Amino acid sequence: MKLLVSRENQPEDTLIRLSGAQFGGGRFTVIAGPCAVESSAQLRATAEVVRDAGASLLRGGAFKPRTSPYSFRGLGRAGLGLLVEARAAVGLPTVSEAVDTDDLAAVAAAVDVIQIGARNMQNFSLLEAAGRLRQPVLLKRGAGATLDELLQAAEYLLQGGNRQVLLCERGIRTFAPSMRYTLDLAGVVRLKQLTHLPVLVDPSHATGDARLVPALARAALAAGADGLLVEVHAQPEAALSDGPQALLPEAFRGLMASLRQIGTALGRAV
Amino acid sequence: MKLLVSRENQPEDTLIRLSGAQFGGGRFTVIAGPCAVESSAQLRATAEVVRDAGASLLRGGAFKPRTSPYSFRGLGRAGLGLLVEARAAVGLPTVSEAVDTDDLAAVAAAVDVIQIGARNMQNFSLLEAAGRLRQPVLLKRGAGATLDELLQAAEYLLQGGNRQVLLCERGIRTFAPSMRYTLDLAGVVRLKQLTHLPVLVDPSHATGDARLVPALARAALAAGADGLLVEVHAQPEAALSDGPQALLPEAFRGLMASLRQIGTALGRAV
Amino acid sequence: MKLLVSRENQPEDTLIRLSGAQFGGGRFTVIAGPCAVESSAQLRATAEVVRDAGASLLRGGAFKPRTSPYSFRGLGRAGLGLLVEARAAVGLPTVSEAVDTDDLAAVAAAVDVIQIGARNMQNFSLLEAAGRLRQPVLLKRGAGATLDELLQAAEYLLQGGNRQVLLCERGIRTFAPSMRYTLDLAGVVRLKQLTHLPVLVDPSHATGDARLVPALARAALAAGADGLLVEVHAQPEAALSDGPQALLPEAFRGLMASLRQIGTALGRAV
Amino acid sequence: MKLLVSRENQPEDTLIRLSGAQFGGGRFTVIAGPCAVESSAQLRATAEVVRDAGASLLRGGAFKPRTSPYSFRGLGRAGLGLLVEARAAVGLPTVSEAVDTDDLAAVAAAVDVIQIGARNMQNFSLLEAAGRLRQPVLLKRGAGATLDELLQAAEYLLQGGNRQVLLCERGIRTFAPSMRYTLDLAGVVRLKQLTHLPVLVDPSHATGDARLVPALARAALAAGADGLLVEVHAQPEAALSDGPQALLPEAFRGLMASLRQIGTALGRAV
Repeated sequence: MKLLVSRENQPEDTLIRLSGAQFGGGRFTVIAGPCAVESSAQLRATAEVVRDAGASLLRGGAFKPRTSPYSFRGLGRAGLGLLVEARAAVGLPTVSEAVDTDDLAAVAAAVDVIQIGARNMQNFSLLEAAGRLRQPVLLKRGAGATLDELLQAAEYLLQGGNRQVLLCERGIRTFAPSMRYTLDLAGVVRLKQLTHLPVLVDPSHATGDARLVPALARAALAAGADGLLVEVHAQPEAALSDGPQALLPEAFRGLMASLRQIGTALGRAV
Repeated sequence: MKLLVSRENQPEDTLIRLSGAQFGGGRFTVIAGPCAVESSAQLRATAEVVRDAGASLLRGGAFKPRTSPYSFRGLGRAGLGLLVEARAAVGLPTVSEAVDTDDLAAVAAAVDVIQIGARNMQNFSLLEAAGRLRQPVLLKRGAGATLDELLQAAEYLLQGGNRQVLLCERGIRTFAPSMRYTLDLAGVVRLKQLTHLPVLVDPSHATGDARLVPALARAALAAGADGLLVEVHAQPEAALSDGPQALLPEAFRGLMASLRQIGTALGRAV
Repeated sequence: MKLLVSRENQPEDTLIRLSGAQFGGGRFTVIAGPCAVESSAQLRATAEVVRDAGASLLRGGAFKPRTSPYSFRGLGRAGLGLLVEARAAVGLPTVSEAVDTDDLAAVAAAVDVIQIGARNMQNFSLLEAAGRLRQPVLLKRGAGATLDELLQAAEYLLQGGNRQVLLCERGIRTFAPSMRYTLDLAGVVRLKQLTHLPVLVDPSHATGDARLVPALARAALAAGADGLLVEVHAQPEAALSDGPQALLPEAFRGLMASLRQIGTALGRAV
Repeated sequence: MKLLVSRENQPEDTLIRLSGAQFGGGRFTVIAGPCAVESSAQLRATAEVVRDAGASLLRGGAFKPRTSPYSFRGLGRAGLGLLVEARAAVGLPTVSEAVDTDDLAAVAAAVDVIQIGARNMQNFSLLEAAGRLRQPVLLKRGAGATLDELLQAAEYLLQGGNRQVLLCERGIRTFAPSMRYTLDLAGVVRLKQLTHLPVLVDPSHATGDARLVPALARAALAAGADGLLVEVHAQPEAALSDGPQALLPEAFRGLMASLRQIGTALGRAV
């Protein structure tokens, strides 16, 4: 059977358009922002930085899945409110994660793109509920998931009627101990052959180390990915989660400049 | 901070007792049954086989998480009804999986032990809801999860007030291609040092191959696991899911006999 | 093509006999001793301990492959001399590693079983040279090698004419960070189906932690392995390499006693 | 202790120069050619293709380490002779693998750069022998080796006095089944921080699939690697080994053109 997600079923790229932004069709589109929404001031400041540097969407977590029950787990619905404010203020469409079916409608109402995280990639109830929406969903690959499992998870969304699906590679579990996950860029190249859906790369979560992010972001563009999900924080050392992987504003501006140069060389709009 | 799940916090084994069965404290307790509840006749026939051979609990999936949206996904609530019938008929406590918060109460009402599967090990909303119950939960290790992540997931349950938690190793993702997963028995030995919770082993899902199950079940006992979760089907070739990994009744009887012999040698009640 | 190592080619177990010891045919045979030969006194003391506790062969490394060029790399040929002495003194056949073709003849002359280590599993020149010998070879699985690759490496030996080959599982590289390697006992069960060669288990190198060794040694017996390779040191805290994984004499005696009990239950001579 | 390979010991890049080619110092240098030397005509034809397209060195295997003893294992010393001829004819320095200490001198005499392959990364006898040479060595990362193990293996070479060492990432073993290995480009970025030695990328062996090679080669450049090792074959369908991963001449020319464009954008000479 030809899966709905497959290139065999649909040879041409799926294009996903949001006010001013586009995924697919050769564009390289950058989603940036803090790991977690922490306060109005923090979110606004970072949002302006990423917009001015050339990001097309603003990301920020309101509901944070955390390994330990004792970690900071996000501002929840209050965080969604701050995302609504920030969107109005800076004019960027927004991305935030829904972690269960109970909160899905609230997230969908507050942001433009609903993220389903790596730990929920095979939360089939959540996939089915998101499949009933008509709003873009960004589905992250599980750290222990094969490409086929990722595509089958996306198939739940398309089969439910939601065809606006973005995939995201964010690192897999391997024996290699020198960083958090191993970014599977070859898997991105393979995904682009197998599916018409846009494929993004998240070098921030993959490595957990901001010093590695710019080089891998450039590699993602050169490898043919459709965009990035990258963490930026105006004060990484004060971040409530994942500070060491967030780029400083200056580093993000430098990254965007180098991406535009490579994009020009490759004939791709960044 | 000492986690609630840790041996540092509670040196003695957590004992979990259900009508006639006990987990922890040196016992080796076997949960057996079909992968999926398919019909009243199938469930009843298999339930009698496993009871007569010495299993202490009956397992059977009503809600089946499946990689593909086009696979058989279980009988749902009708399957729970069949589990209630089978429990009454054969007198064994039952185990079945809850895949989301919506169905959790129904599963909890129908069976004795609620399973949270490998794909949902970090579905924190489901863990929090199950933490509010006062009923045993069998939490399976994710295929890409570390022991620490498993223990932290169990911590969500204990922190919520539910102290009746069983852990289960069911294989991890590795490069080794010769079977579905790699059973991490050394991880079971380590878990027994780290936590007071009972630790079970599921050799059926780990290998996906019934020919490997008996040897690994014996190894689990010898390694110090507290019990087994093993698939048995009266007609594996007709099973709607995972037939190749289910033991035939005769093989299950042989396995139980060998486990009793090893148990006697080790001074453990099987 | 049917490989020489396959059960298809030879259904019955290969039996390997050395003065008083046998591998294959249902026996469970224990090779024990220090990681490295350090001195005459150390080797002799440990040899007596392992012989008295019931080990059938003495192991000890004279040539040690080490990750860092600055680590202790063994006594070399002087170490082989000490192995010859120890064999004469305690009456156990000996096992030691050859790390290259240059030293192979010297190792072969000094000991009964030549070990080819995990790092050299695909050193095809060494395999070819060892294939020309008529002396048992113990071939360890590489930490990143599949079962097929291990069997193909053994095929080099058999194809060269040396049919006395012992295989050994000693842990594979996986994402799981809680110990050095992940012991693949399911792989051992599979190997026993695929090949007629004896299959041993080395829980000492697999875990790097003596506290995990006895439980996994018992599991290896229960899983159907043909024997063990286990590190014992009279003074682990003074060992020049791998001290934390060596069993103390008392722990080794306890392990042997429990193995005999399980062996009796399983009808296997330990 | 500061390793000789570390940036702490030597902050500036090691530069390795061969007639007309340079590794390190910002250059991006391409080594290309067939997997195995098969015949004079095949080698010469491919050598001209890669030279004309802009490769700086010619690669070709004379001694081929092969998983199975029944596979084609190279032309051996006759193959070295063909490499000498091809170097004279096309004017490119050459790279070929030495698989043991016995053949090392012959390989060293015939080619400019001696390759030590992934399976031999921890063949310490071979590393010590190559450390005594004063000729560049290209050391490939083992498929199950950590970055630290690769650096320690290189340390054997430097400690022996040979400071002309090139490292090469060629894919690691992971659970991901969709291609042969998982290319660890993030590991390349980390290596560039840790060591002053040039770091190359081999996308051909990593993926085993020529359709994935160009995108990953571009990604390697963008990630900051110092060069490529890439397989090209004038008739991949007739290759005696690894045909499916070899680029056709036309594809290689297209790759080189795109690399030059990206190099210009990044200010790097390709």
